[in-house]
Amino acid sequence: MAAAEVASAGSAKFPLPAVKPVDRAMRARAERRLTILTKPLGALGRLEPLAAQVCAIQHSLEPELVAPVAIVFAADHGIADRGVSAYPRAVTGQMVQNFLAGGAAISVLARVEGMTLWIVDAGVDADCGTHPQLIDAKMRRGTHDFVREPAMSMAECHEALRRGAAVLERVGQGSNTVVLGEMGIGNTAASALLTHRLTHFPLSACVGRGTGLDDAGLERKRAILEIAARRTEIQDPLTLLSEFGGFEIAMLTGAILAAAARRMVILIDGFTVTVAAALATRLVPAALDYCVFGHCSAELAHRALLEHLGVTPLLDVGMRLGEGSGAAVSVSVVRASLALFRQMATFEGAGVSQKDG
Amino acid sequence: MAAAEVASAGSAKFPLPAVKPVDRAMRARAERRLTILTKPLGALGRLEPLAAQVCAIQHSLEPELVAPVAIVFAADHGIADRGVSAYPRAVTGQMVQNFLAGGAAISVLARVEGMTLWIVDAGVDADCGTHPQLIDAKMRRGTHDFVREPAMSMAECHEALRRGAAVLERVGQGSNTVVLGEMGIGNTAASALLTHRLTHFPLSACVGRGTGLDDAGLERKRAILEIAARRTEIQDPLTLLSEFGGFEIAMLTGAILAAAARRMVILIDGFTVTVAAALATRLVPAALDYCVFGHCSAELAHRALLEHLGVTPLLDVGMRLGEGSGAAVSVSVVRASLALFRQMATFEGAGVSQKDG
Repeated sequence: MAAAEVASAGSAKFPLPAVKPVDRAMRARAERRLTILTKPLGALGRLEPLAAQVCAIQHSLEPELVAPVAIVFAADHGIADRGVSAYPRAVTGQMVQNFLAGGAAISVLARVEGMTLWIVDAGVDADCGTHPQLIDAKMRRGTHDFVREPAMSMAECHEALRRGAAVLERVGQGSNTVVLGEMGIGNTAASALLTHRLTHFPLSACVGRGTGLDDAGLERKRAILEIAARRTEIQDPLTLLSEFGGFEIAMLTGAILAAAARRMVILIDGFTVTVAAALATRLVPAALDYCVFGHCSAELAHRALLEHLGVTPLLDVGMRLGEGSGAAVSVSVVRASLALFRQMATFEGAGVSQKDG
Repeated sequence: MAAAEVASAGSAKFPLPAVKPVDRAMRARAERRLTILTKPLGALGRLEPLAAQVCAIQHSLEPELVAPVAIVFAADHGIADRGVSAYPRAVTGQMVQNFLAGGAAISVLARVEGMTLWIVDAGVDADCGTHPQLIDAKMRRGTHDFVREPAMSMAECHEALRRGAAVLERVGQGSNTVVLGEMGIGNTAASALLTHRLTHFPLSACVGRGTGLDDAGLERKRAILEIAARRTEIQDPLTLLSEFGGFEIAMLTGAILAAAARRMVILIDGFTVTVAAALATRLVPAALDYCVFGHCSAELAHRALLEHLGVTPLLDVGMRLGEGSGAAVSVSVVRASLALFRQMATFEGAGVSQKDG
C-alpha cells in the first residue's frame, strides 16, 4: 500500500459509516441448530453463542473465518514524558521495528494463525522507515501532553478516524475477519481516563500498572490523571477522544466502524482496543455486535469495561501485552467454535438418543 | 491395533510405572529466557508458566507438540440405571459410533487440531463393532451398580489400569502429547463420589448436573450417592477406584501414568479426566507435573478439584461436554505459548530498551 494513500491529509469531518444490525433471524436459526447437535444443551459453553454471533454477522449457517488479518496501530503519547509507564517512550518505535522483523509476540502469533500482519504508524515519535508490512498513516510524532492541552485537535481526531477506516478498507479486502491491536508507551494512561469518562467508574479504579509500574509509579500515574481529568468535564465521545485519546486509539475507533460496516468479525484485544470499541459503540451502537472480545487483560479496568459493555471475553489467561496478542490467541478458539457448528452431527443424523423426558 | 493385544486378560497386579520428576533446572532456564523476551515481565500471563512446564517435561528449550493424539475412553456404569443422568445409558454406545463416524465434537476438534483420534471401548454396554480408530479393551458391559456392590473387583481394577497403560503405549508411539477424554453416561456420579473421598469436600458439593439434570434429578443423584457412600469408608486410591470407579476412569488413570513415564505432555479434559489425574497423582505424585489442565468445566466440582490439586486450567469458557473437547480446544493455546517461547526476539537481539530504573 502506498503510504500516501492513507496519510494524505484532509480536514473534513469523518463520516460515520453506515453499520447494519447483525442478522438476528440468522442468529435465532443458529441457536436452533445448536440445540440439535450431538451434545447436551449448552455443553459447548461460550463457544455456542460465539458461533451464533458469527452466523449473525455473516448472514450464514456456514460461518467461517476467511483470510483473517491482524492490524497493530502504533503511536506515541505526550503524557508518556510524565513517567506514567515502566518503559521509555522510545520503545514504541523500537517495537514497531520488532513487529516488522518478526520477533514480537504478535509477529509470532500472526504466523501461527496464518494471518497477514500490518503495522500502522499512526503517530510514532520515530522515523519508522519503510517495510512491506508498514503503513504510514502518521499524524505527527505523538500527541500533546493532555495534562496541559488536548491530545489532538478535533480536526486531527476526525482525520485519524478517517485514516483508521481507510487502513481497514485497504487491508481488509478479501478478508472477513480482523484482529486489532495497539502499541503505544503511555496509552493505558489515556485509556484509563477515557474509561473513567465513558463509564463513570472512579478514575482510581480505571488506572492500572500497564506494562508493569511499581506502586510508586502507579500512584504517580493516578495523580497525573486526576489533574488531567480536571481540565475538562466534556463527555461526548469525539471530544473525549481529542482531549485524552491517542492517534492509535482514534484510528482503531475508525477501523472498528469501517470493519463493522463491512460486516467483518472484529477480534478486539485488551484494554486499549476495548476502549476504542467502547468509543465506536458510543458513536454507532450497532457496531458492538460485530466485536468478539478475545480475552480479558490483567490490566485493572479491562474486566469492568467489558462488563460495562455487557460482553464476555473468550480467554482469561492473565495476558497484558497488547499488540493484539490476546485476540490473536483467541482466533483458534473462534475457529474451533465455527468448525464444531458446521461439522457436528445432529442427534437424528447420528442416531443418538435425546435427553430423557 | 489388534484388539487382542490390549484386551488379552491378565489378573496380575498393575505395576506402577516409574515416573521421573520433570526437569526443574530446565524449567528455571526457561523462566530466565521468558524474562529476556520482548515483552513486559509476565505479560503473557498463563502462557509463560505453561511454556516453562513443557520445557521441563521435554528437557528442552525448544519445546513443541509432536504428533498429538487424542484418546477417548468409553464405558458404561451400573449406577446409570438409577436415573443419575439426563440421558439414557444407550447413549454411550451411540456416541462411540458418532465419534467414529466423525460427527462428535471431539471428532471435529481432532480434525481441526490435526490429531489422530482413538476411541477405546473400555466397557461399553453395546457391541461397538470394528473400526480402524476403535480399540477394543472392553472389560465387560459396564460396571456393577456401586450402590449395592463394588463397581469392579480389585483384579478388574488392576487389569483396567494395565489396559489403559497399554493403549497409551501403543497409540503414543511417535507422539509427545496426548489429549485425554471420556464418554460414559453416569460417570459424573462416579466422579463425584471419588472426588468426595479424595478431597474430603462435602459430597453434596461434589455432585453436579452432568449432561443436564434438572433440580429433581440432581436431588436424586445426591441422595443415591449418599447411600452409596455409606457402603464403605475406604480411602486408598485403588480401592476407591474399584469400589466407585468406572472402567474408563481406571484406564485413564493407567494411561496418565504411562504417559508421564514416557515424559509426554498430558492434556487433561474436564471433571472425570481430572478425577483420573487425581487418582494417578495419588499413586505416583510425580505424574502431576506432566499434566496440563486444558479447561475448567462448568460441572460443579471441577473447579474445586483443580484447586485441590493446586493447578490452574487454561480455558474457562463454560464447556461441560467431556469427550476431551475442552482439552482439544486448549491445544492451540499450548501451541501458541510454545511458538512464542521459541520464536520471540530478546530485548538485546531486537534492540528494544528495557524497563526504566
